[in-house]
Order: sequence, then structure tokens, then C-alpha cells
Amino acid sequence: MKIGRVSHQGRVRMVVVDEAGGKVGFIGGSLASHPNPVQAVIERRITAAELERLKDGEAGFADVGFLSPISAPVRNIFAVGKNYTEHATEFDKSGFNATSGASAVPAFPQIFTKATTSLAGPTDDIRFDPAHTASVDYEGEIGVVIGAECRNVSKADALGKVFGFIALNDVTARDLQKNHAQWFLGKSLDTFCPVGPWISTADESPVESLELQTWVNGELRQTGVLTDLIFDVPTLIATLSRAMTLLPGDIIATGTPVGVGIGHTPPKFLQDGDVVRVAVAGLGELNNRVRTL
Amino acid sequence: MKIGRVSHQGRVRMVVVDEAGGKVGFIGGSLASHPNPVQAVIERRITAAELERLKDGEAGFADVGFLSPISAPVRNIFAVGKNYTEHATEFDKSGFNATSGASAVPAFPQIFTKATTSLAGPTDDIRFDPAHTASVDYEGEIGVVIGAECRNVSKADALGKVFGFIALNDVTARDLQKNHAQWFLGKSLDTFCPVGPWISTADESPVESLELQTWVNGELRQTGVLTDLIFDVPTLIATLSRAMTLLPGDIIATGTPVGVGIGHTPPKFLQDGDVVRVAVAGLGELNNRVRTL
Repeated sequence: MKIGRVSHQGRVRMVVVDEAGGKVGFIGGSLASHPNPVQAVIERRITAAELERLKDGEAGFADVGFLSPISAPVRNIFAVGKNYTEHATEFDKSGFNATSGASAVPAFPQIFTKATTSLAGPTDDIRFDPAHTASVDYEGEIGVVIGAECRNVSKADALGKVFGFIALNDVTARDLQKNHAQWFLGKSLDTFCPVGPWISTADESPVESLELQTWVNGELRQTGVLTDLIFDVPTLIATLSRAMTLLPGDIIATGTPVGVGIGHTPPKFLQDGDVVRVAVAGLGELNNRVRTL
Repeated sequence: MKIGRVSHQGRVRMVVVDEAGGKVGFIGGSLASHPNPVQAVIERRITAAELERLKDGEAGFADVGFLSPISAPVRNIFAVGKNYTEHATEFDKSGFNATSGASAVPAFPQIFTKATTSLAGPTDDIRFDPAHTASVDYEGEIGVVIGAECRNVSKADALGKVFGFIALNDVTARDLQKNHAQWFLGKSLDTFCPVGPWISTADESPVESLELQTWVNGELRQTGVLTDLIFDVPTLIATLSRAMTLLPGDIIATGTPVGVGIGHTPPKFLQDGDVVRVAVAGLGELNNRVRTL
């Protein structure tokens, strides 16, 4: 199933998504007034059949506005750096990596977080003050949504802990990423984590089906398939859960493929008015306009 | 005022703390059943006088067990690396910093996060599996607790956004910190962020009063005063809030002074049975035993 949240006639509604039909079904019952209904579906393992019974209407995509599926994340979004080989090389060559090692391709996953307040919806503006950062870059990614609390998960069991997948843009202020050495700050500006438009469950969107493309103003910049990750989804879940308890609703941004702005000569940083589109087969697409403050 | 949470006769109670008198006052009313009462006090700006009116009993320190004051943090704990000059030098010399720059003393604050699930109470065990990490280290620190949602705060206004301060141990797996390059993972093991025993408000515990000491098995290892920070509390709040909205209940671990385990030759890593004590004047003390799994 595909689930998300939309605004419709002035109300925020939880929905199930019929992508092929281009329409959403509104979810009624107690979930209709829940502050974080998608999180509730994940935590309570509510099934597609149960959601079907809770439907109290529908509308076409044109009549709704998709929001971030999860309104208040349980904690910071986990994210993985340098997880596609060609991107690892382009990033180290760019001079913006304060943590370059002997080899561009890391021996262990490089994991940081993005602040909860960076979360944005699939059509929200990406905003920044040019006096604060002059080198804002896109990173189209596929995010894993964890379905169950877990600890010390083996690679063999890891995919069983996945609820689903989501399109994500790991927007980054390259100058802040470099200056502060640790990447958290430059990755965590308000609006720097557009997600959505929906979460597609793992049964409907298996790892091998997930291909992403990133476009800026209609120009194709990135293409990637999730099967090309240096550290694959089971490895990421095993590595994280070896250290810490994972929680339902946790999001792991799995890394970005080659083709980010700093991979170009000269670098192509995002400018006021640019539109970044991240499209993932089965997961829908993000369309975020850049607005300077 | 000083506020926290204790276990008492099988119940978890929110308390106001009378440190000089060695006793706590139990808070009744609607806060008694709140899942995160200290967070509620911060968000609703409940005053000491209001809490006084809600008191429904008291007990001596010997009759209660202090817990983490905040049960479910609103998001990951912010933390600052290399924020005391001598520690910045000892850390870079140790060989465990994958992000060493030309100078040990950073030009910008190095900010990372610790997962919410790393939070532990002031007397909980610090636990790890020796097959996972063989170099666990202590970092006694003073944490800032944010009192109000804020964005783009000037240094001049920053202390006005502080609710209070808390003692904190930024426990770190040095091998994981180094191997994963970004520090998040090695800082985020379950139980690797003991805090407490209470939060003391800024009026009662101003910055200039805050001195910390860290002891391991009764041996003094670290002493530091908050006025010695390279990036002081106003600078940290200004830097973070320039990038992202800060939220009531956010915790900023301000950095550790010289004297951590890797500052010794050979390094003094924590071993099963060790007891780490972090004591801050006015903020009480942490006493955490190390237990290997």
C-alpha cells in the first residue's frame, strides 16, 4: 500500500494512494483526528485491508496537495554519506569534504543526522538566506522507513524490519558542511529535507524496483538504482541496530548517486527560483522550488 | 528551581529538588500522570511558584532514585566537539579523529547529534558489547536545555532562550567514532548519554557558576568551567538557530574538557565494573557503572 497525508478543502487528511488511478482515498475513523496518523499506522501495524474499511471518500490528485507523510518524526532523520561509488569520488574531488580519507570509498558507512525541523513536504519551498550559505546543493535519495522497534538485527533479517520507502532530497549547504566538519549543521537547515509524496510499503516497492532521477529546471542531473549502494539496506540496518535501538517511523536516507551540483565544473549550486524534482519509480516525486530569503 | 523525575515506592514522580535540604517535593495535579512532565513544565513555562502549589509530599534523597529528567527527548541531543582548547589538542593527537584539520582548535563549532535512544538516567549502567567496541571513553559535559522555540537568535538574546542546565556524559566508542568518520554512530549507542539527576534553571545556575569534574573509580580525570568554552553558550545557540528552529527541551551538550581516556598514554578506556562520576556544582552528579554485555 501507499499512504500519506494531503490537504483537501482546508483540512489535513490521511490517505491511501491509488497511483495508477491518480486518486487518493481519505481515511476516517479515529485516524482522521490523529496528530500523526501515518506514524500510528506504522506503529500499530494497521493493514491495507483495515485502511480500506476506514475509507470515507476519495479525490483525484489534482484536487489535493500532498504533505510530508510523517508530520512529526520520532527523531532526527538518519542519513548516509558517500554510499554510491561515483558520488564518493565526485564529493572528495570537490574540496567540500572535511573528512576525506585515503580512499574516496569509505570502509564503513558514514552516518549523520538531519534535524527533525528540516523536514518539508513534497511541494514546499527549499528556503535559505544567501548571507548564510552560498552553496546549496541537492541530493536525490531513497529513504527507508523502519517498521518495528529492533536492536542487533542481522543482515538476513533486516528487510523484515522495513515498513516501506520514500523519496527524499538531502539538501545540503556545502560551505556549512565543510566549515563545521561534522555534516549535521549544513544538512539541517529548516526545509532542507523534502520527503514524500507518500510512503510505499516494501511488498509493493521492493529494493530492486527502486530507481531515482533528480532533475533541476527540467535538466536530468542524477540517476541511481538502490541496488548500486556501497552499503546496502540490510547492511545499513544491521550497522545502525548494532549500536542503537531503531524505532518505528525512523527514516534512513540511503545516500545520493553521482551528479550533485558540486560534481560539476564549475559547481551548479541551487539559485532562487530553481525547481528540483526527485522522482522514484513507485514512490512518486518531489517538486520543490528554491526560494532565497 | 531544580526539577527532575524520580522513582519512589514503585511509581515515577516528577519532583522539585531541594539540593541543600537533600530532599525532593513530589508534584501532583495533572503533571503527576503526564508522560513527560518536565518537558511539559518547559513548554508551558510553569513557574516555581505554580509547582510549589502542586506539591503533594516530599522525601529525602535516600528514599528516591533519580531518573533522566526528560523521558522522551523531542529529538536527538545536539553535541559539540573540540570545544575546550586542551581537549581539542589531546583528541587530535590521539589518532581517533577522522576529521582533524590543519589546526586542532576548530574555526567553527563542530556539531553532531546523539540518538534519543542513547539517553540514560544518572545511575543507569553504561552498557556495551566488547565485540562491538573496544575503546569506550567518558566525556563529562554540561548540557544546555532550551526553553523556547526560537530561530535566528542573536548572541545578545541567546541566554534568554535557555531554560536551564544539566550534567551529561557524552560517552563515546572511539573506534566507531573513527571508523565511521562522522561521529554520530560512535556517540549513539544505547545508554551512551547519561543525564541528570536534575535540570537547574538558568536563574539558579548561571553560566559562570558551572564547574564540572569527572572521576573514574574515584580518580579525578577532568575539571572544567563553562566559561572556558571556545564557542560559548550564546555562540552555540546563535550558530544552531541560524540554521534551524530550536525547540523547547532541546539539549546542547557543550563539549568536554581535557582529560578523557584517549588523552592518556596508554589510553584509559572504560572497563567492565568501572564507575564514572560526573559532578557539576549545582547540577548534582551522575554515577554510572560500566557493564559489558
